[in-house]
Amino acid sequence: MLSVQTDVFFMKEAIKEAKKARAAGEVPVGAVIVSQGRIIARAHNQTELLSDVTAHAEMMAITSAASYLGSKYLKQCTMFITLEPCIMCAGALKWAQLGKVVYGASDDQKGFMLYGKELLHPSTKLEFGILYDECSQLLKDFFEEKRRLKKNS
Amino acid sequence: MLSVQTDVFFMKEAIKEAKKARAAGEVPVGAVIVSQGRIIARAHNQTELLSDVTAHAEMMAITSAASYLGSKYLKQCTMFITLEPCIMCAGALKWAQLGKVVYGASDDQKGFMLYGKELLHPSTKLEFGILYDECSQLLKDFFEEKRRLKKNS
Repeated sequence: MLSVQTDVFFMKEAIKEAKKARAAGEVPVGAVIVSQGRIIARAHNQTELLSDVTAHAEMMAITSAASYLGSKYLKQCTMFITLEPCIMCAGALKWAQLGKVVYGASDDQKGFMLYGKELLHPSTKLEFGILYDECSQLLKDFFEEKRRLKKNS
Repeated sequence: MLSVQTDVFFMKEAIKEAKKARAAGEVPVGAVIVSQGRIIARAHNQTELLSDVTAHAEMMAITSAASYLGSKYLKQCTMFITLEPCIMCAGALKWAQLGKVVYGASDDQKGFMLYGKELLHPSTKLEFGILYDECSQLLKDFFEEKRRLKKNS
């Protein structure tokens, strides 16, 4: 029970990050990395601001956490991310040997699960569907608004 | 003929980058990105220096080229990279919609071709094996030296 409450708490923090992305006109995806019960890195998608496809929330959170810990491996860490990571981010999660990855919404088109959990490191635990509806709704609303603006332009 | 000479020229530039990595004790992988016949970005692996698994040559070259062009898409660009990109880098190449990717040595254990060319964008052209021996030898020598030092330590 405690574990579930904790997961929900941290996913809510990731959602806060996603909302920062939304406010900046970015695809609303957010992530936090937790070590020993504390958030040590937080990031949101900034691909538009930085004009850089590599500026996904996961990538920046990994860089930030590694800098904080002084280690490129994040074996004791858990990443909470509002959306299923893409192939690029799954590759980064594998290199960093994340202890655990927890994502909210699924991405049936570009998510790494198209290729299965084997894209992650064998020792990485995986959970998904935490606050699924809230995470998904953020993305749905964003893309619907985008389509509406395009139609009216 | 001209095309082959040009490919060899640019791969030699990528090898120069790989040698910078080697000199710094990093796995020797280097990349350059070419646009309209000119190198607009060059990078080498810096994962140890930066303690960051995302600091692969390809990732940094993409970020650098996008910054130079002011566009996150690199549709008119060619990346020359001494080693077959990993899954993470292939994902980034897909997002950036690289016009063409040319790699030297193969990576049978961690290369993206384990999953096939479909990991790249459908419009990305692919070539490999350019200066294969030279690119491979750099990596072989590096890992042999590493094993030798470990054995003697």
